[in-house]
Amino acid sequence: MLTVENNQLLTQTGPGTKMGDVLRQYWIPALMAEELPHPDCPPVRVKLLGEELIAFRDTDGNLGLLDEYCPHRKVSLFYGRNENCGLRCAYHGWQFDTEGNCVDVPSEPDSNFKNKVKIKSYPCEERGGVIWTYMGPPELKPELPEQEWMLVSDSQRYISKKVQQCNYFQGLEGGIDSSHVSILHSGSVGGIGVSGKSQSASLLGKDTAPRFEVVDTDYGLLIGARREADEENFYWRITQFLMPFYTMIPPFGGAPRGGHAWVPIDDDNCWVWTWSWTPDRDLTEEEVTQMASGAGIHPLLIPGTFITQANPSNNFQIDRDMQRRGESFAGIFGIGMEDHAVQTSAGPIVDRSTEKLGTSDTAIIKARQCLLKAVKLLENGEDLPALEPSSHHVRSASVLLPKGVPFQEGAKEALQLSEHDYEAV
Amino acid sequence: MLTVENNQLLTQTGPGTKMGDVLRQYWIPALMAEELPHPDCPPVRVKLLGEELIAFRDTDGNLGLLDEYCPHRKVSLFYGRNENCGLRCAYHGWQFDTEGNCVDVPSEPDSNFKNKVKIKSYPCEERGGVIWTYMGPPELKPELPEQEWMLVSDSQRYISKKVQQCNYFQGLEGGIDSSHVSILHSGSVGGIGVSGKSQSASLLGKDTAPRFEVVDTDYGLLIGARREADEENFYWRITQFLMPFYTMIPPFGGAPRGGHAWVPIDDDNCWVWTWSWTPDRDLTEEEVTQMASGAGIHPLLIPGTFITQANPSNNFQIDRDMQRRGESFAGIFGIGMEDHAVQTSAGPIVDRSTEKLGTSDTAIIKARQCLLKAVKLLENGEDLPALEPSSHHVRSASVLLPKGVPFQEGAKEALQLSEHDYEAV
Amino acid sequence: MLTVENNQLLTQTGPGTKMGDVLRQYWIPALMAEELPHPDCPPVRVKLLGEELIAFRDTDGNLGLLDEYCPHRKVSLFYGRNENCGLRCAYHGWQFDTEGNCVDVPSEPDSNFKNKVKIKSYPCEERGGVIWTYMGPPELKPELPEQEWMLVSDSQRYISKKVQQCNYFQGLEGGIDSSHVSILHSGSVGGIGVSGKSQSASLLGKDTAPRFEVVDTDYGLLIGARREADEENFYWRITQFLMPFYTMIPPFGGAPRGGHAWVPIDDDNCWVWTWSWTPDRDLTEEEVTQMASGAGIHPLLIPGTFITQANPSNNFQIDRDMQRRGESFAGIFGIGMEDHAVQTSAGPIVDRSTEKLGTSDTAIIKARQCLLKAVKLLENGEDLPALEPSSHHVRSASVLLPKGVPFQEGAKEALQLSEHDYEAV
Repeated sequence: MLTVENNQLLTQTGPGTKMGDVLRQYWIPALMAEELPHPDCPPVRVKLLGEELIAFRDTDGNLGLLDEYCPHRKVSLFYGRNENCGLRCAYHGWQFDTEGNCVDVPSEPDSNFKNKVKIKSYPCEERGGVIWTYMGPPELKPELPEQEWMLVSDSQRYISKKVQQCNYFQGLEGGIDSSHVSILHSGSVGGIGVSGKSQSASLLGKDTAPRFEVVDTDYGLLIGARREADEENFYWRITQFLMPFYTMIPPFGGAPRGGHAWVPIDDDNCWVWTWSWTPDRDLTEEEVTQMASGAGIHPLLIPGTFITQANPSNNFQIDRDMQRRGESFAGIFGIGMEDHAVQTSAGPIVDRSTEKLGTSDTAIIKARQCLLKAVKLLENGEDLPALEPSSHHVRSASVLLPKGVPFQEGAKEALQLSEHDYEAV
Repeated sequence: MLTVENNQLLTQTGPGTKMGDVLRQYWIPALMAEELPHPDCPPVRVKLLGEELIAFRDTDGNLGLLDEYCPHRKVSLFYGRNENCGLRCAYHGWQFDTEGNCVDVPSEPDSNFKNKVKIKSYPCEERGGVIWTYMGPPELKPELPEQEWMLVSDSQRYISKKVQQCNYFQGLEGGIDSSHVSILHSGSVGGIGVSGKSQSASLLGKDTAPRFEVVDTDYGLLIGARREADEENFYWRITQFLMPFYTMIPPFGGAPRGGHAWVPIDDDNCWVWTWSWTPDRDLTEEEVTQMASGAGIHPLLIPGTFITQANPSNNFQIDRDMQRRGESFAGIFGIGMEDHAVQTSAGPIVDRSTEKLGTSDTAIIKARQCLLKAVKLLENGEDLPALEPSSHHVRSASVLLPKGVPFQEGAKEALQLSEHDYEAV
Repeated sequence: MLTVENNQLLTQTGPGTKMGDVLRQYWIPALMAEELPHPDCPPVRVKLLGEELIAFRDTDGNLGLLDEYCPHRKVSLFYGRNENCGLRCAYHGWQFDTEGNCVDVPSEPDSNFKNKVKIKSYPCEERGGVIWTYMGPPELKPELPEQEWMLVSDSQRYISKKVQQCNYFQGLEGGIDSSHVSILHSGSVGGIGVSGKSQSASLLGKDTAPRFEVVDTDYGLLIGARREADEENFYWRITQFLMPFYTMIPPFGGAPRGGHAWVPIDDDNCWVWTWSWTPDRDLTEEEVTQMASGAGIHPLLIPGTFITQANPSNNFQIDRDMQRRGESFAGIFGIGMEDHAVQTSAGPIVDRSTEKLGTSDTAIIKARQCLLKAVKLLENGEDLPALEPSSHHVRSASVLLPKGVPFQEGAKEALQLSEHDYEAV
């Protein structure tokens, strides 16, 4: 439960909001690299944290992310021309480079006019198949993130992006909620990897009431969810909440690892990023086919959009027979879509002042505190967590540990990226 | 004409509103019985008086009507599983019985946790092919209604339901408005029954300016609309407004009788219920076919919905040729749809402070007074009309009476249900 | 740049607004004559300046434009019957003549009742293929407009109408913006006429930074946009802003002339009227075919509507290949649609308080002043420009003039309609 005020604080991320200021201290995944496939390709609209922006890759391959609207008479640069190292407005031809400088104003006789014009721009970088941007104060720009999926080669990684019709934090809560895995995903949980009914799946199903131990770290939270395995062992599902909006999914055996970012589009919608990767080998064709099928955590999209085929307007294509047969607990195809359905079904912004939380919501309560604390830290000029890329060198894990062994110690090696795993980044 | 304040009072029915409190004293038709066809069938969303609810029939056949949203983290129970005598949330598996008790919380280790959780629930009963609910204070729950159509056998009754895109009272006004029958329905009025051009139809068309006599009763209003028939006789069209939102249609000869309920979905939309029945014989196949055709008072729906095929988005499929030929005065197919079109065309909530009413609106003025008076009665703790089921034992009628004979006396027998007509209910 | 207050003043035109009062002093193009093709044809909804109205042509051919809603119970007269010299409401049959008099109330026994009922009505006239209305104080009704396109025969004129999803003034600004022609229309500007690459087109492309000279006149503004032609000559593009919302396009050689009206539907949408005409000959079949093709200034509509096929919901069917090839600077088919796209892309109402205007926006700045000044004139009871029809006898022009010759003098003859061109109107 949260006060109405704290719920607003947590969920409002537009320009000038306190949480918006926090998120703007971090690099933000803005587009898939393939959305801007080559120099002078068509510009792409992207809305982030309530800001309407336009992205482009200029003639030299440099990335630009600008205010969508030309400062002259405010028409959208979407209809503009990406040419000669700049994006040119279709109305009067004003042209802007990737840094937001106005480099040409054909409509004005005074050639100095352009030097007085500048447009909002955010720096962009490409890493791990993603175009990242930084929307905060230039002097505070941190190093690029270094999560494991970003460091592997392209053939070891599969990325997707979708629009989800709710506030980013509603999705994020699902991503750190180890408890619902035993229920919502009980029908298909084995499908996360390719191994079918794994040992993890059966252990998750056996104990539906995990006990949580949550540890504050320099990147956010380390979350241990403990389930009964047998008389001597606990089954530990250990995941991270990486500030400000990343969640990690523990691997099942040798199957690809997975993770999400939950990025505000505006306060009522978010981008859900999903990545799958293998640390030490290429993804197999079978694995890629399964990811593209929509059965797992990646979405099936309406072609040409980032809107999922199953969505609120069609009740997520719920199939009551599939539900009755237990193939999906909710009757919805795909693990990611099961999450999508329940998270959005609560409306765009959950009223957290009237929830009934239990001990199984411990990690969620801590994650809220983590973000609300960041607001205070920023106000006091103190350091925020996870700005240091080396803090991202973590892995989630699911392990059997003898009862009595603290999960942090028992799983120590599994939880961190070895120094020698990747070349210095 | 109504003050702006009284118009709001009349039309606002959400939780905490005064008129909402009045309506919540009565049983309300919530779903067609066939929407919950068998134990453990899929749950069904239903919105009533601004409240989002979920209906289900449990393993034992008991009916439940609960808050749509799980109290835990507020996700919709629509995606839940109806199993083992309860509706189970798809997210974490919390389960609720038909009385709103939380009977299982698999995600919490403490088995007592569930005993502290309860969800809003309303009692349901099935009668006459309808699932009824009572949304008021439990201690004031009245007996189930006993209108004639509820008492006949299933083979004597035909029921339909549709969404109408306006406030419930706008529809209700049409249902008690004997005056418009001579005009709006002049093209097809014979089609209400199956008898084609009846004597009633020709009498209705002959005098388009009925005089009204309206009598307060213990169930609401008895409305006599008098038209000139011949030198010696009046043609009386006598209908009831049965509190809080029922209207009755007088029969034409031996044709089936009809009636409506106008139930708020929210303040801008209402459920229109329509029932046809025969008191003393089964409906014929021809009658049922005609009802299903949409030509009369029952709607043609978009399959899988309660949305009519002709609706505001397509100008009710108006056919100006049909209008010109006089087959329909408004060029709209179906008597019910003629009403639907004009009633919604005024916008979701008519501004009744700027109307120009005449003597032919007498019954409408009285019906408004009747509901506004009920607000006062409830505030003063006095008895509301029509709570006693025996007060429902009335029938509408259309009769020829010699001038000088009061309609209540002349039509006395036709207007009441004989004690011996139905077994005690 | 405009203050927020002046931007509101400029863009708000509903009943009771100051700019709305100004616009209501003028005749307004309301419908295409063909929308009411014959006596007793179906009535047509039309929204103007925020007012919902219904237009009809009565049995005698008289035109009526009434409040859309019957004063009785406020249902729409759209579903009414146009018969016997009046529009009859479908609900209770109240009938209104073209002057808004209630001429029949079949539902009321008192035959005098109707004399106390009147509905809002505006006078209508037909001229030039357009049904005009006047929504201002009756005693101030001016003479009908006399623009050239209205005076030619039907075979010399082509008219179209479309809905544009932005405030009327946003469109109007484009219509007086000679500067954007060199840019936005650079790909297709020769297509305005049928002559392909004309001399005008090449001169427009050569100098993209026109200098503006704007002159106040008794009809609005005379706008000269000067471009370098060669060492000795300027190329002058001379257009008029005719109060309150007309703009004129200069002709290319012998091609048809063109013009627009930008009429508020409500504050977020406008009717764009386009007319093409030839002063001294019939339009050729080829010219009409080209206009109907949507390649020029006339739109391609979704059949049965005034909505363009390319519109905001489909990104104006932008074709990035066509854009890259330079066939259209914005990649959008049709000159009128290029304008439509950029104008609406700025949102329904541009925030003019944050623009960055240049010298090439001189005419736009003056047009804003012209309308804002009209607000003052009206408040002070002074005469408004362009109310006198003879002031409309102007023509736009594009001419080569020796440097040093003032454009008003050099183009004097081209800019006015000769007295002998048309019979006295």
